[in-house]
Amino acid sequence: MTLIDRLAAAVGAEHVVQGDAIPARHVQDLWGSDRVGHATTLVRPGSTEEVAAVLALCHEARQPVVVQGGMTGLVGGGVPDADEFVVSLERMSAIEEVDDITMTMTVQAGVTLYEVQDRAAAYGLIFPLDLASRGSCTIGGCLSTNAGGNRVLLYGMTRDLVLGVETVLADGTVLAALHKLVKNNAGYDLKHLFIGSEGTLGVVTRAVLRLQPAPASHLAAFCGVSSLADALRLLGRMRAAMPGMVSAFEAMWDEAYRMVLPYRSSLRIPLTGRYPLYVLVECQGGDPRTDEARFLSALESCEDLLRETAVGTTPGDVAALWAIRERIPAEILGGDLPLFGFDVSLPAGQLEACLKQIDGELREHWPEVELQVFGHLGDSNVHIAVVTGETTRDRKPLVETVVYRNVAEFGGSISAEHGIGFEKEPYLAFTRSAAEINLMRELKRTLDPHGILGRGRIFATTPQARS
Amino acid sequence: MTLIDRLAAAVGAEHVVQGDAIPARHVQDLWGSDRVGHATTLVRPGSTEEVAAVLALCHEARQPVVVQGGMTGLVGGGVPDADEFVVSLERMSAIEEVDDITMTMTVQAGVTLYEVQDRAAAYGLIFPLDLASRGSCTIGGCLSTNAGGNRVLLYGMTRDLVLGVETVLADGTVLAALHKLVKNNAGYDLKHLFIGSEGTLGVVTRAVLRLQPAPASHLAAFCGVSSLADALRLLGRMRAAMPGMVSAFEAMWDEAYRMVLPYRSSLRIPLTGRYPLYVLVECQGGDPRTDEARFLSALESCEDLLRETAVGTTPGDVAALWAIRERIPAEILGGDLPLFGFDVSLPAGQLEACLKQIDGELREHWPEVELQVFGHLGDSNVHIAVVTGETTRDRKPLVETVVYRNVAEFGGSISAEHGIGFEKEPYLAFTRSAAEINLMRELKRTLDPHGILGRGRIFATTPQARS
Repeated sequence: MTLIDRLAAAVGAEHVVQGDAIPARHVQDLWGSDRVGHATTLVRPGSTEEVAAVLALCHEARQPVVVQGGMTGLVGGGVPDADEFVVSLERMSAIEEVDDITMTMTVQAGVTLYEVQDRAAAYGLIFPLDLASRGSCTIGGCLSTNAGGNRVLLYGMTRDLVLGVETVLADGTVLAALHKLVKNNAGYDLKHLFIGSEGTLGVVTRAVLRLQPAPASHLAAFCGVSSLADALRLLGRMRAAMPGMVSAFEAMWDEAYRMVLPYRSSLRIPLTGRYPLYVLVECQGGDPRTDEARFLSALESCEDLLRETAVGTTPGDVAALWAIRERIPAEILGGDLPLFGFDVSLPAGQLEACLKQIDGELREHWPEVELQVFGHLGDSNVHIAVVTGETTRDRKPLVETVVYRNVAEFGGSISAEHGIGFEKEPYLAFTRSAAEINLMRELKRTLDPHGILGRGRIFATTPQARS
Repeated sequence: MTLIDRLAAAVGAEHVVQGDAIPARHVQDLWGSDRVGHATTLVRPGSTEEVAAVLALCHEARQPVVVQGGMTGLVGGGVPDADEFVVSLERMSAIEEVDDITMTMTVQAGVTLYEVQDRAAAYGLIFPLDLASRGSCTIGGCLSTNAGGNRVLLYGMTRDLVLGVETVLADGTVLAALHKLVKNNAGYDLKHLFIGSEGTLGVVTRAVLRLQPAPASHLAAFCGVSSLADALRLLGRMRAAMPGMVSAFEAMWDEAYRMVLPYRSSLRIPLTGRYPLYVLVECQGGDPRTDEARFLSALESCEDLLRETAVGTTPGDVAALWAIRERIPAEILGGDLPLFGFDVSLPAGQLEACLKQIDGELREHWPEVELQVFGHLGDSNVHIAVVTGETTRDRKPLVETVVYRNVAEFGGSISAEHGIGFEKEPYLAFTRSAAEINLMRELKRTLDPHGILGRGRIFATTPQARS
């Protein structure tokens, strides 16, 4: 029996798809990434047991696989490489249980983030993870990439929002650890190996998500400020004035903000002036009667930092302010010239100097270069779009080297929330030490001795001994 | 040159102590654990480089070591076993930096939790981790055990409160990852291997701790309630009414509470009646003007659940309410009869049934058995003291088996926050699957191939292949 026959026996012949019958969505990221793969075989297991059977067969046959969620990644991690089989978890999309006493939801990996948010809302609860790709991205993908998004400041990243996780190892071993416990110090907390390791150490099949009470008030302000230093002061003062309530603190430099100005009317842009930097600060609370007054009073006490402010106190107005922020990536991507996009973290105190240094170095090569910067300033995570003015992307390695070298030198990370995948693999050593990368390789070899899972993502897979 | 000579050359002869010159505090946990070890050699490195040198020498010589912090553990993990050398990090006790822009503190592993809390306060910030042993326990110990404590409900466990961590591996390799980044998805997040692994995978030498703005208001109520179900309803309603503000939710069953009643006057016990259960609910907020009114109004709206309530709105009154809760463990330990103590997690909805089942099964052996239960109900973590009435502890294995088997059957964990150490090692398989324990062993073998670090803690160290 061939491997294909065995896989068909494991998951049903209709769930092993080959050649041209494989839908195009399985070979490229949803946003239209540079990287386009080619798939000969797509396998769609429908249960944990079927995932285990598929991996056991591929492990035995030394058949490389890439596991796919919603294909909304930004570093090419889900795109099939060379001879990889695609294993899609799209059939495992059930919400298995909502437990409103422990405030948890048990789901299969293929469910979308939006479905989870929507189901939680029916119980007066929220799952606080929120990304622009919520309608397409899956919980399995969020876990495997430790997704971040808009409200990390208050609720943390995906890693912080899950309790138990069920994982299948490369050889088909099932680690069934679907507990609902906030505190569990009984031995190594193995789930952290799989969260954020981009599918290279195991396959998350189910998870227990931690829900929170839905906030009763929802307030936001869109502010023009004079400098990054003022924006950081604003962040500090707002957090001190409203501890446990500042749920997002997004920044847009004017070079990014101006990209959405042509849509002034449809986007309901509330500010009349232009400023070096704009901030969207959001608060969530439990007391609609007093939260609004507190929010307004906190903003008033920051008057010295605010050049112009528009406040949203109704759900519609808050959504309109968010729409400005969420429109920026699309307008930047839709510009006339090619751009190079970055997702980096920097210590708050180093951000300004680092951006200045990057700008200066790039300007030596491209005097007209423009940095369009926006992102989750509350978490010191910015997205940088570099527009060199050139009409080709040929000098991508030069731009990347300048950005990543400086980010590393200023104590930052070359990936805040998008992961490494294939896209940033050449630069991992800028931000992680040789000892760290060697340990990653050793872990990879321990958990996936034949190297069948997500080969080539994060680091090149040639194993090396530590000593 | 002998190993001792080499160690002396690495750390200075005065920091290699042998035989009777080793202080007694290095062979027993501070609270006077059953387990008392014997140490032939104590090594006190003063820097990361010295820790690395010590471990490299011990690795080469196959010399087992146990690393010690403040010796406040509750599972014997720091007590030296047989031929182990003691490596104490007490000389590495510096606070290296407070960065009030990123709100981080960089510390060496040997600093006490209290010193960290105290230094943060000088900047108007807090390090939210808080344990009764704050004056003696060290940050290194908190990280290696993923310590929990009083405010996990709002701030999370130690794992959630650190950014970068510097670790020395068993062979002396230094993993220098002292970053200050909230978001860092550049490859595997290796720190989670070391946090909570009780010193068996590496030695944490330094860490970047995440600070928070100090709350401006501090409120608490001590309440008598009729049932666990009512206590859980109270928790749900208070969290919904004051999201992001309920910082602790502690429970004491009457069998535990009554232990402190003889100290009624000195402890300022405010309730006049006796109830099946008592709850200490604490809120922290940012607006002293409105928080108190909100807290009182939230409590009022829970009137149907509260039999008697005493509110603390001044720091002194809040501290007095906490003093009752914090006195309980000492009074239970000081009782006339031996007891068996447990630290377990259970899903909130299962807690009552599980306690009833444990009580019933124990009663078959000891009709007069009493369960004294208290703990962090907001995190579904209770501490159970079992007093069988016998005057010996001979039947400890029977008591432990009844408790741990039931905890596992009800979906709980045999260790919520204390860890496994030596104490719970025989019971690990009650709560973790064979596949999980095998993976733990494989990780241990990968990171510490000669098995020199914390041998015998968490699981017996005989390595076994997975397949």
